[in-house]
Amino acid sequence: MGLKTKFEYIDSLRRQKPAIYIYGEQVEDRTKHPALRPVIESVGLTYEFAHHPKYRELATAKSHLTSEVISRFNHIHQSNDDLLKKLQLTRALTRFAGCVARCVGWDALNTLSIVAYEIDRKYKTGYYENFVNYLKYVQKEDLALACAMTDVKGDRSLRPADQQDKDMYVHIVEKRENGIVVRGAKAHISGVMVSNEIIVMPTRAMREKDKDYAVAFAIPVDTPGVIMVGRTTAPREVGKMDAPFRSKWGASEAFVIFDDVFVPWDRVFMCGEWEFTGMLVEIFATYHRFSYAGCKPGMCDLIIGTAALLAEYNNVEHADHIQRKLTDMVMTSETVYACGVAAAAQGKPMGPGTYVPDVLYSNIVKHTVATKIYEEFQRIHDIGGGLVVTTPSEKDFNHPKLRPYLEKYLKGKVDVSAEYRVRAFKLAEDLTAHGFAGWLMVVSCHGGGSPEAQRLTIFRSYNFNKRKELAKCMSGIKPLEECLTLEM
Amino acid sequence: MGLKTKFEYIDSLRRQKPAIYIYGEQVEDRTKHPALRPVIESVGLTYEFAHHPKYRELATAKSHLTSEVISRFNHIHQSNDDLLKKLQLTRALTRFAGCVARCVGWDALNTLSIVAYEIDRKYKTGYYENFVNYLKYVQKEDLALACAMTDVKGDRSLRPADQQDKDMYVHIVEKRENGIVVRGAKAHISGVMVSNEIIVMPTRAMREKDKDYAVAFAIPVDTPGVIMVGRTTAPREVGKMDAPFRSKWGASEAFVIFDDVFVPWDRVFMCGEWEFTGMLVEIFATYHRFSYAGCKPGMCDLIIGTAALLAEYNNVEHADHIQRKLTDMVMTSETVYACGVAAAAQGKPMGPGTYVPDVLYSNIVKHTVATKIYEEFQRIHDIGGGLVVTTPSEKDFNHPKLRPYLEKYLKGKVDVSAEYRVRAFKLAEDLTAHGFAGWLMVVSCHGGGSPEAQRLTIFRSYNFNKRKELAKCMSGIKPLEECLTLEM
Amino acid sequence: MGLKTKFEYIDSLRRQKPAIYIYGEQVEDRTKHPALRPVIESVGLTYEFAHHPKYRELATAKSHLTSEVISRFNHIHQSNDDLLKKLQLTRALTRFAGCVARCVGWDALNTLSIVAYEIDRKYKTGYYENFVNYLKYVQKEDLALACAMTDVKGDRSLRPADQQDKDMYVHIVEKRENGIVVRGAKAHISGVMVSNEIIVMPTRAMREKDKDYAVAFAIPVDTPGVIMVGRTTAPREVGKMDAPFRSKWGASEAFVIFDDVFVPWDRVFMCGEWEFTGMLVEIFATYHRFSYAGCKPGMCDLIIGTAALLAEYNNVEHADHIQRKLTDMVMTSETVYACGVAAAAQGKPMGPGTYVPDVLYSNIVKHTVATKIYEEFQRIHDIGGGLVVTTPSEKDFNHPKLRPYLEKYLKGKVDVSAEYRVRAFKLAEDLTAHGFAGWLMVVSCHGGGSPEAQRLTIFRSYNFNKRKELAKCMSGIKPLEECLTLEM
Amino acid sequence: MGLKTKFEYIDSLRRQKPAIYIYGEQVEDRTKHPALRPVIESVGLTYEFAHHPKYRELATAKSHLTSEVISRFNHIHQSNDDLLKKLQLTRALTRFAGCVARCVGWDALNTLSIVAYEIDRKYKTGYYENFVNYLKYVQKEDLALACAMTDVKGDRSLRPADQQDKDMYVHIVEKRENGIVVRGAKAHISGVMVSNEIIVMPTRAMREKDKDYAVAFAIPVDTPGVIMVGRTTAPREVGKMDAPFRSKWGASEAFVIFDDVFVPWDRVFMCGEWEFTGMLVEIFATYHRFSYAGCKPGMCDLIIGTAALLAEYNNVEHADHIQRKLTDMVMTSETVYACGVAAAAQGKPMGPGTYVPDVLYSNIVKHTVATKIYEEFQRIHDIGGGLVVTTPSEKDFNHPKLRPYLEKYLKGKVDVSAEYRVRAFKLAEDLTAHGFAGWLMVVSCHGGGSPEAQRLTIFRSYNFNKRKELAKCMSGIKPLEECLTLEM
Repeated sequence: MGLKTKFEYIDSLRRQKPAIYIYGEQVEDRTKHPALRPVIESVGLTYEFAHHPKYRELATAKSHLTSEVISRFNHIHQSNDDLLKKLQLTRALTRFAGCVARCVGWDALNTLSIVAYEIDRKYKTGYYENFVNYLKYVQKEDLALACAMTDVKGDRSLRPADQQDKDMYVHIVEKRENGIVVRGAKAHISGVMVSNEIIVMPTRAMREKDKDYAVAFAIPVDTPGVIMVGRTTAPREVGKMDAPFRSKWGASEAFVIFDDVFVPWDRVFMCGEWEFTGMLVEIFATYHRFSYAGCKPGMCDLIIGTAALLAEYNNVEHADHIQRKLTDMVMTSETVYACGVAAAAQGKPMGPGTYVPDVLYSNIVKHTVATKIYEEFQRIHDIGGGLVVTTPSEKDFNHPKLRPYLEKYLKGKVDVSAEYRVRAFKLAEDLTAHGFAGWLMVVSCHGGGSPEAQRLTIFRSYNFNKRKELAKCMSGIKPLEECLTLEM
Repeated sequence: MGLKTKFEYIDSLRRQKPAIYIYGEQVEDRTKHPALRPVIESVGLTYEFAHHPKYRELATAKSHLTSEVISRFNHIHQSNDDLLKKLQLTRALTRFAGCVARCVGWDALNTLSIVAYEIDRKYKTGYYENFVNYLKYVQKEDLALACAMTDVKGDRSLRPADQQDKDMYVHIVEKRENGIVVRGAKAHISGVMVSNEIIVMPTRAMREKDKDYAVAFAIPVDTPGVIMVGRTTAPREVGKMDAPFRSKWGASEAFVIFDDVFVPWDRVFMCGEWEFTGMLVEIFATYHRFSYAGCKPGMCDLIIGTAALLAEYNNVEHADHIQRKLTDMVMTSETVYACGVAAAAQGKPMGPGTYVPDVLYSNIVKHTVATKIYEEFQRIHDIGGGLVVTTPSEKDFNHPKLRPYLEKYLKGKVDVSAEYRVRAFKLAEDLTAHGFAGWLMVVSCHGGGSPEAQRLTIFRSYNFNKRKELAKCMSGIKPLEECLTLEM
Repeated sequence: MGLKTKFEYIDSLRRQKPAIYIYGEQVEDRTKHPALRPVIESVGLTYEFAHHPKYRELATAKSHLTSEVISRFNHIHQSNDDLLKKLQLTRALTRFAGCVARCVGWDALNTLSIVAYEIDRKYKTGYYENFVNYLKYVQKEDLALACAMTDVKGDRSLRPADQQDKDMYVHIVEKRENGIVVRGAKAHISGVMVSNEIIVMPTRAMREKDKDYAVAFAIPVDTPGVIMVGRTTAPREVGKMDAPFRSKWGASEAFVIFDDVFVPWDRVFMCGEWEFTGMLVEIFATYHRFSYAGCKPGMCDLIIGTAALLAEYNNVEHADHIQRKLTDMVMTSETVYACGVAAAAQGKPMGPGTYVPDVLYSNIVKHTVATKIYEEFQRIHDIGGGLVVTTPSEKDFNHPKLRPYLEKYLKGKVDVSAEYRVRAFKLAEDLTAHGFAGWLMVVSCHGGGSPEAQRLTIFRSYNFNKRKELAKCMSGIKPLEECLTLEM
Repeated sequence: MGLKTKFEYIDSLRRQKPAIYIYGEQVEDRTKHPALRPVIESVGLTYEFAHHPKYRELATAKSHLTSEVISRFNHIHQSNDDLLKKLQLTRALTRFAGCVARCVGWDALNTLSIVAYEIDRKYKTGYYENFVNYLKYVQKEDLALACAMTDVKGDRSLRPADQQDKDMYVHIVEKRENGIVVRGAKAHISGVMVSNEIIVMPTRAMREKDKDYAVAFAIPVDTPGVIMVGRTTAPREVGKMDAPFRSKWGASEAFVIFDDVFVPWDRVFMCGEWEFTGMLVEIFATYHRFSYAGCKPGMCDLIIGTAALLAEYNNVEHADHIQRKLTDMVMTSETVYACGVAAAAQGKPMGPGTYVPDVLYSNIVKHTVATKIYEEFQRIHDIGGGLVVTTPSEKDFNHPKLRPYLEKYLKGKVDVSAEYRVRAFKLAEDLTAHGFAGWLMVVSCHGGGSPEAQRLTIFRSYNFNKRKELAKCMSGIKPLEECLTLEM
């Protein structure tokens, strides 16, 4: 069918009937639920981009399988330039719409293209054929995919097979002729409530005794036995001035329960090959950590713009310290993006030719985001001032008795209306001082794995031994002349 | 009458009828409004402390005027130990109740005790007598005071008398035989909606041409012409598990409009003596920046406890990196407190003998809070994980169909119930990922003045010249022997 | 003649007789002076690389003028890949030899290729032809170039023509038929004492009244009137174990005085065209700040290797906190390199097709180096321990009476000799706790301009207005629909 | 005899004949050796202070044993005020003379006063009587003491009794009727080469099997079998302009070898009581980490003064960014001091009434120094500029041919001579860009134990359980009402 419109995407959501619960109630029609509406808008923008004259080229790609024009979100990276375009596309979307949720599925597709290929090379399992067929279907139908990785994990000091309750990681409970049955639950699954399909993959490297936990597959979101309990960033009350961002755009996560879910064999991409789980997790993590170089600078574009606008409306934009803080905001954000550009430029092909970004730089991207995004909040608050939280509500501002007072007293720079100033502060509040801020901080910290996971990967991926050889030559422990022949 | 009980405090609030607007509606009875109820609880705890066996001694003091036992919140500091007790008391209260709102009024009283005294010394104005009488009344009635400092400021690049709209700073519009009339508005006034009285003081140093803006006075909150437009941290929906902190305790700020408000002479403490405004602002700032050494470590006590509890419930509390992050949290918090202890220990008496904490250390306290509190958020998120924002809601958790799944899959450490774990995460979310977090970040950044204001004060209060003399002696520009006689 | 050997380079130095003073004495033969010997070794390695099987390809390039194989250090960047190779080459050299001093001249050549071209486009001056002829000569003779930018500046609050002493910036004092005469002095000129030629360029943007200061040219180091007063990182006493790095490799700077120096017209590339000075300075700054992404990660390679070796020899390399600190060292260093890779990847051609790296990322590179290199020192000291400074000297270690004691008591890990451990500590000391450390810190801070200069460039090169437009759309000040058409 | 003069102190050094080796040669007369002369000056200043009208009161105390006026450096702290005076005294000395070396011995005396007392309480050993007699002698003779704690440790992953070579920690090799014989070596012992006595104490908590390593005693520096191999910060060449600080003042460390040294019983304070070693180490560490709140702010006073002087001489002292950086320098330094003041104010008596500073704040002091002092270097380099390392040498400056050029071109601000400017830069270089800088960085990092040791102590000394109880009450896991009764 080709590239869906936003309308067709929404229609596709309406036609599936997944079991979704939000705030204690089952959702009848997910396209109409107030908590999901902004989330659908955010994902919907990815479909709009594919038809938009300015963004079309960036938002689409040529399928390496069919040569058809497809959504870039369902494309397998064929070059370093494809990796760079991933950053450009996600940054372009995110600055308008926050998290657009489709990266996780995209990263899962690219990961599986490699891992299914490698399992087949070793075991002739046919997973790669399953994957290619699935990919063609996804590309043709232009589906929105979620990916469920993070298991609930139970006692974190125990590995899957050692847990008291064996269901703390998703696992195979039965193999049938026509497919497998899985049980377990996945936590914090982004975008799944507004997707068409869920790709499920293991969340950690498994040992042989965990092999029932080494399972990867894809299913429609309304597959029987799948239950989602979700929450979104949508405000309880939509505002025109209040919560301007969250009223329009949204992010979501759900707890996804797999209550003995059946998966047909042609949707299975791994089933017990535990020795490939480490590779799968590492490749997925690299892709997903890399993607933070697109979406977080995108969010920062908006936050920096808001900070600069507050400075203008407070008439302090020429103050030296304000300019320093804006500069600091830019440095943090652009350092992240630059590390992403480097990861793209130094990416390498794996498996069937799928490009993977550089591991070291991708992990630096994510670790920097996880620890530095909080400083962006500090700076916008510092620049903006107390009104970031104390600006009277939209209803107060519009109250006939209060409006004259508030228009008078909330004016800053003479040629800017109080309303504009209030709107700018409300945007700052919405982004940095309510639920969206909490979401943004936590997703920056833990999305794509915890900062510890990034540190560990960085430590492991760096070859300290060759640096030690260098030090030996330079200190006289080895002959200096050897230094030029060292592998570096 | 002596020390009020919490019940008497609430009753006193009921008897006054101030004009308060919240979310577009006028508040009928402030003691019953859901947005104010938690705020009253937080202030109410200060009254409970005064009767509590464990905290009574800390929460009360002997009046230096009457020798009666009074609330420490209405006490004039008579010693370094009084300064230290301020920190101990506010830390003790804050760790349970968040902002208890009474520090600002307390700081205003102490400031006025010095400034009114000094104006009188120069001009024989009688302000100090006004002040002493007012103080006796406040101590006797055990009143809750707010202080309104921050004007709306209009164009921040212009000083009061230069503004296009002359009302952008509160000022005297008329002097009558029996009193004065004032106009203007004050922004982000903490606790004013749940106080008995407002003390109004200028927000910056004034020039002679700004002298109509050099005005300080105290009035009951229900004085005609006073209009408050407020907001609080209370959640829209009170929860048992969700929002456990905000459902019980609260902070508030209001925009306070002075629409030609009459103030009788005996409530006036400054009226045109512009040359004392700089002193007033600096002393108040020192007191209030100092107070952050009590309340922010108090909040951190709770945040650290929550982080440690999450670590326990996730069964990762023995992981090295978790212990490091907890240690970092402690270092940040206790550095702030230690700088406060130093400011108390090196405080000096001014005016009639009122003790003022050390300027340099008080400003370091506040600047550290303003820039480092964000790191505490990073660490608790890092320790806790994604569930800080993605834990299903209380209503989902209690839904009969979902409960069995969620009890099973939300368990962490084997011997801790899922409910306990959910409660701990809900507390973390409530404190660090919603509106309370926004409030805490912004108040930490801008309460008591912006970080820039602290930097400026630190720069000005440090004697660089004597350090340069030292460098001259040590570099041979001056004889080395002179170094021992340098003033240091 | 083609690519010189290291021997031929040294011979070329011997044949010139520049006026060099070091530590109060005039240098007779610069190739034999103990303070210069290590510096010549460092530059000499660039010549060795051009003949070394492993590095030859990286260290040479094809001249875009003559198609001859030339030293990459005299090459004009023709592509993004050339920019990346600049980083790879300087990193490869620096990790062995510290500063190799040729980047500054290289950056000057590339800068002049653009600026001379642009001046000619406007004024038909013939500078570009002068430049091309000079470049061919430099490439053919494989000359080592220094570049003198930083004037002594006198009172920094005054611009060149406003100084009391007009010579505080190098300027034209006379124009003759056959050339010009210049006067002034340049400070901290790297590598000039061991170079063949000096390229002189203005250090800041000039106004019309400063036009005599708008002068660029190239001259041999032994041109009459040129006097250098220098210092190097060489230790006063060469060691086998002590100061192992500085005894072998060195960096140097000199104060270069131009006492009415004559420059023939064919060596002049700018002479009064003040309106091109801003462009010249910005392009040079971009090139040179970019180059820190090569040399400082190169130095960090060695410092990280030394830290890792100390950890091994102390038998603590498996301690969690040691691994964290090593990881931090890697993150700092590789973030710098990654920003450099991004700057190379996003570079653009200017003037006659010369590639210039991205301004924003090049400045982030340098600012990060300037502020973060100090943390690398902290970490290696933290990892190594007190022996970084307290290890007994080589002479003590070799003293017959002391040797048995020291061999016994300086052993760490059982299978590592005390001598090896001492050597590793001596390398750490040499790099991070003596004069080389001071040089490395200060050059990291101020080379290529101060951190303030980088901040200013970042602020100016970032388009805040388009971000503000974004914020306006998202806050409702402008229609949301407009956001998709915004220039971003 | 009472308080020695500096002359008497030097004379006392001359009368002892310890075995000292420096740079491969045995030192004949330690009072005349160029490497020791500046070190003796620094310690000598402590003796001068005791007679100086301005500092006498601070530098002396009344002995609690004899009521005589003694050097404060040999005083047992009797109050919180004594603790505060320790900071004031060390800060006052350090800002002139750098490390004055006597704190370690002072801390050892205070530690032993408690530990010997406690051992006696348990075992009636008589150590406390030994200690009191020794203390009286030290006070009366006004001796300069060093303390040797840090053993060489061999393989750091093994504890004393488990080492392959049993001598890697100092231990008892023989007990005789009249005393004990010890063997081993101690590393990085500050000031020992210019002291009269060495106090030796264990460096870590011992197990029962390590009990031969649980030994504490005091001996004269010239006791047979004691061999020192040392190094100092003195420059190889004393300068008038160059190295102005190190030419006058110095710090030193030595490797101290105990080659079967005999110690009479009356000088023994612990001999096998392994269960008291943990306590000894913790108390000593607290004292010594606390002392960094005096000496490092003292050094920063000088570094800040130098930075401010450079700013003045460069005529940039009014630039906003320069003032910010100076402010940052002050904040870092004064935060350390403030934490020290808090540690003093919250100190408590132990054992026989000896005051010990607060453990938590003392450790925060040291950890802050260890990680933040490097930022002070960054800032002074940033403020000063490249001349911090590239200023021509004193000999160049005084060279008759060069002097006119350098006087002309090294002028900054018009009314400041080039010589003054050069002197200021030379001081900056001396303090922050040569061997003294290396010493200062490493001693800040590792003196009093590594940053890891401080982190561990902070973690252990903080009661996380009571904070967790707080979180339980606030989240509803325990009744909210219980919170008021919690131990906090």
